Parts: sequence; structure tokens; C-alpha cells
Amino acid sequence: MSEQRTIDVAATQMLDKAKEIGFLTTFDRAKAQEPRCTFGNTGICCRICLQGPCRILPKKPGGNKGICGAADYTIVARNTVRYIAGGAAAHSDHGREIAEVLLSVAEGRVHDYKITDADKLIRVAKKIGVETEGREMMAICKDVASAALAEFGRVDETKELAWINAYTNEERLNIWRKTAIMPSGINLSLAKLLHQTHIGVDSDPVNIIFGGLKAALCDIDGQHLATDLSDILFGTGVPVVTEANLGAIKEDKVNIALHGHNPLLSQMVVKAAKEMQEEAKAAGAAGINLVGICCTGNEVLTREGVAIATNFATQELAIMTGAMDAMVVDVQCIMPSIRSAAECYHTKIVTTMPIMKIPGSYHFAFDEHQAVDSAKEIIRLAIDAYKNRDKSKVCIPELRNKVVAGFTLEAMYNIFRKINPENPMKVVADAIEAGEIKGVAALIGCNNLKGTHDYNHTTIAKELAKNDVLLIATGCSAQAHALAGMMNGDAVKEYAGEGLKKFFARLNAVAGLTEELPLMFHMGSCVDNSRCQDFATDLANTMGLEYAEVPYVVSAPEAMSEKAVAIGSWNVAYGNPTHVGVIAPTVGSQLVNDVVTKVAEDVFGGFFFWEPDAHKASARMVEILEERNWKNAMRKKARDAQEAAE
Amino acid sequence: MSEQRTIDVAATQMLDKAKEIGFLTTFDRAKAQEPRCTFGNTGICCRICLQGPCRILPKKPGGNKGICGAADYTIVARNTVRYIAGGAAAHSDHGREIAEVLLSVAEGRVHDYKITDADKLIRVAKKIGVETEGREMMAICKDVASAALAEFGRVDETKELAWINAYTNEERLNIWRKTAIMPSGINLSLAKLLHQTHIGVDSDPVNIIFGGLKAALCDIDGQHLATDLSDILFGTGVPVVTEANLGAIKEDKVNIALHGHNPLLSQMVVKAAKEMQEEAKAAGAAGINLVGICCTGNEVLTREGVAIATNFATQELAIMTGAMDAMVVDVQCIMPSIRSAAECYHTKIVTTMPIMKIPGSYHFAFDEHQAVDSAKEIIRLAIDAYKNRDKSKVCIPELRNKVVAGFTLEAMYNIFRKINPENPMKVVADAIEAGEIKGVAALIGCNNLKGTHDYNHTTIAKELAKNDVLLIATGCSAQAHALAGMMNGDAVKEYAGEGLKKFFARLNAVAGLTEELPLMFHMGSCVDNSRCQDFATDLANTMGLEYAEVPYVVSAPEAMSEKAVAIGSWNVAYGNPTHVGVIAPTVGSQLVNDVVTKVAEDVFGGFFFWEPDAHKASARMVEILEERNWKNAMRKKARDAQEAAE
Repeated sequence: MSEQRTIDVAATQMLDKAKEIGFLTTFDRAKAQEPRCTFGNTGICCRICLQGPCRILPKKPGGNKGICGAADYTIVARNTVRYIAGGAAAHSDHGREIAEVLLSVAEGRVHDYKITDADKLIRVAKKIGVETEGREMMAICKDVASAALAEFGRVDETKELAWINAYTNEERLNIWRKTAIMPSGINLSLAKLLHQTHIGVDSDPVNIIFGGLKAALCDIDGQHLATDLSDILFGTGVPVVTEANLGAIKEDKVNIALHGHNPLLSQMVVKAAKEMQEEAKAAGAAGINLVGICCTGNEVLTREGVAIATNFATQELAIMTGAMDAMVVDVQCIMPSIRSAAECYHTKIVTTMPIMKIPGSYHFAFDEHQAVDSAKEIIRLAIDAYKNRDKSKVCIPELRNKVVAGFTLEAMYNIFRKINPENPMKVVADAIEAGEIKGVAALIGCNNLKGTHDYNHTTIAKELAKNDVLLIATGCSAQAHALAGMMNGDAVKEYAGEGLKKFFARLNAVAGLTEELPLMFHMGSCVDNSRCQDFATDLANTMGLEYAEVPYVVSAPEAMSEKAVAIGSWNVAYGNPTHVGVIAPTVGSQLVNDVVTKVAEDVFGGFFFWEPDAHKASARMVEILEERNWKNAMRKKARDAQEAAE
Repeated sequence: MSEQRTIDVAATQMLDKAKEIGFLTTFDRAKAQEPRCTFGNTGICCRICLQGPCRILPKKPGGNKGICGAADYTIVARNTVRYIAGGAAAHSDHGREIAEVLLSVAEGRVHDYKITDADKLIRVAKKIGVETEGREMMAICKDVASAALAEFGRVDETKELAWINAYTNEERLNIWRKTAIMPSGINLSLAKLLHQTHIGVDSDPVNIIFGGLKAALCDIDGQHLATDLSDILFGTGVPVVTEANLGAIKEDKVNIALHGHNPLLSQMVVKAAKEMQEEAKAAGAAGINLVGICCTGNEVLTREGVAIATNFATQELAIMTGAMDAMVVDVQCIMPSIRSAAECYHTKIVTTMPIMKIPGSYHFAFDEHQAVDSAKEIIRLAIDAYKNRDKSKVCIPELRNKVVAGFTLEAMYNIFRKINPENPMKVVADAIEAGEIKGVAALIGCNNLKGTHDYNHTTIAKELAKNDVLLIATGCSAQAHALAGMMNGDAVKEYAGEGLKKFFARLNAVAGLTEELPLMFHMGSCVDNSRCQDFATDLANTMGLEYAEVPYVVSAPEAMSEKAVAIGSWNVAYGNPTHVGVIAPTVGSQLVNDVVTKVAEDVFGGFFFWEPDAHKASARMVEILEERNWKNAMRKKARDAQEAAE
């Protein structure tokens, strides 16, 4: 870990406080794990059976392979794709939960949920081939929800996943078919991948990696349907203005953090909170204040304008303000240590999903039939906690930055259409072709304390913006920019290159928003990386390019979770150059590392590169975009010359 | 690793040869991994995200938990249940492949496979609730195959898995329902378990373990249907007499080893070999000789009487005889190192399943439509290899022991029925109640070179037999006994206690077999642990006991694979005391270790115990059986007294 723990001023202030009271945070625990075990860190530790652990020990006779004879490349490949399996399972299971609720809505089995965006329902239905003409809305809804659930249950391997089939063009689908990575069923592919990586099954690293890519395509499929069905249930985000950083926690209000990934319950908390302001006032508070952490935060930011408290690495610090009355969590990226932090304060930790409990916390098992009731109970718990808040312990940093967010693809198109009503994406394509912007970068992923918290996120964003790269962002990366005050119009003035400034100026002139457009478009949570890929797909289609020709790069400057590995992998399979800001545990095998960083480009056009240095990483991304533009220009020139000759 | 590498005389001879030619075997590689990494070995190394690896370092400030705050119990529980997920995926996916072929048979899409055991089809159909009266065989077959595939695809969590529901009695099913571990769909449960164990999801070790048990029940479900559908396709085994150990490899024949787990292709090789003896003779050989390794070996032993060459740990040594012309492998427990061994000889390694390749080997992708053709091509490859065999390198140990095997539950019942035609299991129940035998032990599982190869298997078998425990066996454990010459009538004379001898004498008098019954009933491959559990279920029903009262224990003296963890876990969930002969990677958390070794008994009646010492382990198992018998006797006494009083 770098000596500087975080670039966030408020977080630094809270870390000093933690030190003062003797509370060990994740930053301390990251320090304690230094130096990391080299075997695990480079991927050459195998724990897939009980004979080991086996570690590649080239200097010992018999030590250059595992006990079963697995070489470094087998061990590294297996470990890597099991990360993908974990990530794809998490993302897709989140999607499945949403699909179950949508089906309940269609069948009239719940009253707390409804179809909020009927237009999106129709668009999705048409896209995936559900008949819409002359049909009742609920019948269409049922078919769409059932089609989503079928993605999970399908075991007929002659069929293909419906969502990626619908949202990807034939050129790319054919590459996946040719390489035999097109999946049939999500859960089937995950189970098969576990089987493939069992002791004594596959030892061919390339075959294993292709199995992993199949699971990665299940990840994007699950993400895409999670995004689509969430939009149908809760509405498709439109531009919102709010604020970010710990200063969004209000001393005079009942503060409730919504943390995790799945919007099913948090949306109900938002709904219930609106009705319960008076109850909070009766308890002496000025009202209820909701703030978001991680992707549940992004979900309710995008759809409801809820402020961002903080992102993954600093979640404990939100409690240490002493003013957090309840932290309501669902699934994924929730540190168990929030419970320890809460012990120092009056904060109630509330878990809500059957597969996610924290010993010593309050558990309100999510039940779609009583979701609002549960949400109300949770809010009452928070109000009760507020009454016990020790005011002497309250210490909220002043920092809060203006955030302009809510840029679903639909929201962006609404703006682009004011310039080009026929083909909104042509606004971006034209800017690229004119050389005004160099291309598009998706800034995504987690926090990882192998580096300084949020430094790489924000540094890369600044460097790319300076080089006229249009930025889209999701997840904890988007939150890093928001926390740092870069997600607003002022940041454009401060950090954008001249071309990018011109591009924004043109959009601002017609956008009709109360605020200027921000330096990066916040496209949502990590399942909303599907929105980013739809952006790239539309850009390819609009520019008449193959996927691997589009000036589009992806960066996960602080990749941490298995989900990040899955997301990175499907990005590569889509043809996207994908930067990862931590050294991946593939480096223990030169072969596997070369496959994912070099050979992948020959097969898919996309590839990974590991670069912890933010400046070098940014320079490389700019180079890649320039190279793609140059190649596209050359191809165009050649075509023009040929046409002239004919 | 113990100083003595193996108790197998032939293996010892081959290991000396390996040393002579400088070939490093799995025994050398196991030595090279000593001492094992303590963190991995005790389960307190976490690699579930990319911030780590994290290791529990209690002495370092902040080191007593992972970076996210996961305590030892969370880390250990997550690692443990991910083993279960891997094992359940492997077993069940094997079952799914069989179900796909059975469906093809039912739909007339293949000509190499057929219904071999129609009676079993009807029995299974009736059991799982498929209508049989007045229906065409193929219609019933289609429904059974579809019901099996539905186990994998089901996403409706209000439903239950059909197989375990049918083959388990209500008393136990209700325990599973009450503890919320009854699964709906196999693949769904596996995907959910991956999600549950993702970074920042569940940190409650008990909740995680219950998620793991749900996956373990998917394991037995997948195993059961694999066994049932294999019996339908290839026949239900009947007693066979054959031989075991490396001496089963014949110098004058084309030798082909069938290795792995899935019988789909190996059964076709058996079929084709019968037709191709002349081709082998034309090449100068005396014919084709098939031998089995691991559970594919057990499958073709049980149904076709194919000899056993060796078990897991010694698979490389079969190649080092210099007389192995081809090793045909499918899935699971196939050491990648067989390819390295083959490089020293003329042996062809043939992989056959899309998810299992070994670089540098021949790959014949299994295709149910051309399975016999593939089998023939593979045999031709072996015949060609035979022509290149270097006779000067041939060195086959003389050792081969007589084996009496093929004891499916049906085969056992055919014998028991000669004593009790109405209720065959009453033969065992009566012997237990009369004190002739103490109970039943299932000897199962793998090899693990943390100990001396096959020592624990055979020592435990001898000790239990001496104490009048009736033995049933599967997998590499069954093979250990067969290799050691303990799977025949002579072994009864040598090792059985007086009660057990009497029991066997009574059976032998009526069995009508050409050979006396062996010391242990070989019930098949590791998916055939379902047969063992059916045995225990029938014993419970016959004795009028609850599952956890039956004098039945399970021992995996050399547990190695993730499948073993899954099997052990469902055994515990079924109420079976389950011995594991290696220290499990749960010991890094006192809490988790106590849950699986102690608390489990309160909930399920079953529990784990780790005991590497074969004598201590046997003594404990005998004690457990005696205690259960004593308790049953006390319960009976109390009932009788109460009845007398009334």
C-alpha cells in the first residue's frame, strides 16, 4: 500500500479520527497484509484439492508443478476463471432476483412493485423478441420476466442466451460462436466451469480460459437483464443534481445509508422515507436523510437523486461520523467490519438478504410481498437509533461536492437527439471523426488498497479528459469522481482538453438542463456496465466499424472483486482494450499472462493490460485510441482510393 | 508425507523404477510441497478478492481479520463451501451428461445407446412420480430424462429437487426443510452459493455453512440420478469376478486404461473392444485388454467386469509399466502428469470431453451420435501405439489379486432375498439386532498423499472387519481394498471377526455365486455413494429408526477432492457420523470446526471427525456404532417397559 492512504480529504480526516480512538480500519488491515504472499498474489497457489496447498517452487525437485502435475499455467488459469465464476454468479443472481420480482408484478402477486417505465418494457420486449402488438402490458411483462428467468434455467446447449444475442451485433456473435464461448444458460455455464476446474479435469490453459470467457458472457447477460428489468420496475434514470462525500450526512437528520448492489429493498426505503419524514421529526430530527454507498448508492442516485456518502474502501468511515443511524445493506462489497465500526457508535447495521448476514446485526429478510413494510420497520429502527445518538461523538467532515449524474443511455440520447434527432450516437461519432474527441473511455470498477484510495481513478480521469477523451463511468469509479468533485460542469472547465470542452459546449447549448454537463457521464452501478457496452455497440454500429475498431477503451483503475474480473473478461471478449490498475494474479504464468494480454487481441481484438501507474496507464489508453483512429482513417482512405479507382 | 510412500507392493516396485529413470512422480511432487503452507492448510488464507491474499495474522495489528474485515470463521466457512460447490458441480454435471444422452435415446436421436435395464427405468419412474401404467417405454424414458434435466434447470425456489425428495424419508426431509437447506435446482444453488461467498456478501459462518449444505444436497441429487440413469443405459451391475493391480496389464495384449468418472464413452470402448479383438491380433497382439483406473474403472468393473489397474495416486505408474498403449480419460481426478509420463513411453493419452483437455494429448470430443465410432478410432490409435511399444521398457509387476465386485444395491438384495424374500434389508437389520455385526461402515473417497498411499484405507477396513462391522465401499477406497487383495472371500477368513464371518457364511450358503462373498461390498464409483445412502435409508426404514439412530458410519480415509468435501457434507446432513482421515482446512477457525464436528450433531445427528491415525479412527467408528446400538436398545427397552405398563 502506498504511504498516502487516500486522496479524499474527508476520508483522511476520518482516518485520523479512527487512529485517535484506536479503531482499526480496512486501511490498517491492508497494511497488516503487507507484504502479500507471492504465491497467491501471482496466482501460483493451488487449493483446488485437499492434498495441497500446492505452490510452484521451481527450485525444488518436483516443485515446478502441483502434486497432481498441474503446471503454473493450469493453476493460474483455473484460479482466474474461478474468479470469473464468482463474479458472474454475483451479478447474474442479482439480475435473477429482479426478474423474480418482475414476474410477481406481472402475475399480480405483489403490491409494492409496479411497472414504472412501460416504454422500456416495450423496447426490451421488442429487442428480445417478445410479441408486443395488441397485447396487454402485463402479458408482455410476464413474457419478458420469464425470458429473463429462462436465461438462468436453460440447460439445452443448442440454444443461446437471449439478452446478449439481442444486444450484440452479428459480427461479434459470430466470433463468440466460432470460439465456442457463446453460452446457453447462465447457471449451467457456471456449474460447468466449476466442473472444468475441478482437480483432474481440464489442464489446458486456453481451454480453461475459453470456459471462463463463456462465464464472463453470462456475467454481461445477467448484468444487462438486471439493468433492463430494474429500469422497468423503478424507472430509467434521468439527469439529477445532488452531492457527494461524507458531508452529505446531515447532523440534524436521521441518516440512513443504503449500501450494497440490489435496488429491490433500497427503492422501497426511498419510497417509505418520503412518507415517514414526520415520524423522524417527531423524534426530534429535521427529517430523514438517505445517502448511498457502493452500487446500491449508484442505483438510488441514478433513479432518485440520493446523495453519495462514500465508496467501497471508505464505507467504515461513514459510520465513524457518529451520525449514521442505520446502514441498510443488501449484497456484495459490504465489509463485515461495518459491524465492528457500529459497535463504537449507536449505528444499526441492517442486513436484508437471506444469503447475506453479519453476525450481531439486525436481519430483515427481504420479502417482495412486504417490502415497504420492511422498509418502514427499518426506518423506525433508524429513528430509534437516532434518539440514542451520542452528539458528542458526531464529527461530520464538511466536504460535499456537487454531482450531476443519472446518465443512462436513454438520458444521454435525450440530449444527443437535440443535435441529431435521427441518430443520437452520431453526435459522438462525428466528434470522433472530426478529431474533436479521441474516443471514449469507460471508467469502472472498485477500490483496491494495493494503491492509494481513489488516486488512480481520479488521475486517469483527469489525464484522459485533458487528452480529449469522452468519459463514461460506473460503480465505485464513478463514485470516486463524484467524491472528488469532478462530476460537474466546473470539472470540465478545469480538466477537459480543448476538443472535449468544445464537445460539451455544443451539448450544453442544447441540453436544457439546470446544470452544465459533468466531466464524465455517470451511467450507474456495476451491473450498468451493460449500459457502457450498449454505448460501445451503438458507437460501432453508427461508425460502421467492427467492435474491435471502435475508439473505445475500458479502465478499472482499482479492480478488486471477482465481479471486476468477470467484467474485464467480457470487455476483452467484446474487443475492448481493458486496463487494470493492479497487477493481476495471472503473472505467475507467462503463458496465461501472454494469452490474456497479447493473444486475446488476435482472437477478440480486445486485451488486458496491467498498469498500476496512473500516468502510464492513461498514456497507453490515449495511444490505443489514437491507433484505432489512425487505422480507421487508413481503412477509410484505402476504401476511398479503391472507390475512386473503380 | 509419511516416509513409507505406499503399502502397495507393485506400486513400490514402479516407484523404484521411476527413481531409476529419473521420472518425478506425484509422490515426489507431494514431498516437494512439504511443509504445506499453514495458512492454506488450515483454511485461513483468503483469495476471494484481488486486495489480498489475506491471511489471519493474529499478532499483527489489524492482522486478525482480512482487509475487508472477514474474520477467520468467515474465511474458513467460505473456503469450505466453495469446495462443496466445486464437488457438487463435478458430480452433478456428470449426471447431467448422462441425462442428456438418455433423453437422446428416448427421442430416438442416437443409435449407440439404448435402454439396457428397463426394470430399473420403471422403478426410477415410479419412485420420482412419472406415470408408467400402460405407457410406451420410450415415453417413460423421456419423462425420466426430462425430470433429471429439470433438476439442473429449475429456478422456482418453491419447488424441491425430485430425486432426493423421492429417495429420502419424510423425517429427514423435514429436518432439511426446517433448516432451509432443501434445494430447488442444482445449478441455481451452486450459483447462489458462489454469490453468497463473494466479497462482501455473507459473513455469518453458520449461514454460509447452511448454504454449503444445500449445495451438498445437490451433490447427492446429481449423484443419485447419475447412478440411476447409468444403470438404465448400461445395466445395473451384478456380481463379477475379476482382478486388480498392475499385473492386470498384459504384456501380450493391446492395453487400454479407462480412466476418469463418466461411463458414457468408456462403455462404448468396452463394446468396441469386443468387436476389434481381431484387429489387435492382426497387429501381433494376443487381443485387447481393458483395465480401469479411478471411477471410470469402477463403472466398467461393476457393469462389465473390467479389471482394476490402480487407483488415483498411482495412475502415472500404470504408464510406467511400458505396456500401456493408450490411456483414455474423460473427467475428474486425471493427473495432468500422465502426459509427462507418457512422453517416456509410446503411450497415447486420449482426452474425450470438451471441458477436459491435456496439452499435447489426442482429443476425440465425445459425441453421443458417433460414440462407438470414436471408441473404435481410439482403439485403433492404441493398436498403432502397440506396434511402437518398446519391449525393452516393459516392466509389469506380477501382482494381481482376485476381486469379487459388482454389488449394486440390487445385486446385494438378490442375495439377501434368498434369506428374506419379503424384506431383504432385514437380513442386515437382524444381524445387527442379534449383535452378530455392529453395524455398517461405508468406506469411500480418494487418495491423499498427506499419508501413506492406501494405508489408511486398508487398515481401517481390517480393523472394522475385525470388530464385526459390515463394509460397503466405493471409489478409490474400494479400489485400495481390491488392489490389496481384500476384496474376496479369503479376506473374510483372514480379517473378519467371528460375527461377521457367521454373517458371511449364512449368505454364502445361499448366494449361489461361483465365488465366496468378499470382505467388503464394492458398490461402485463415487457417484454411487448414492447406492450407499440408499442402503442406509433402507436400513433406517427397516429398523424403524431415524437416520441419525442407524448404526451406520462413513469414512473417507484419504479425502482429497472437492467432491469428497461435498459427499462428506451431505453424509453429515443425512445424519451420518463421517470420518475424514486428513485434517480438514476448517481447523483455522475454532468456531467453524466446532460447528462441523460438534454442533452439526445437534442439528442433523451427523458430524465430521478428522483423524489421520487409522487405528484411532477405527476405534472411534466402532465406539459410535456401539453407542448407537446401545441407545437403540435402551429406547427399545423403554418402549417395551412402557407397553408392559399400559
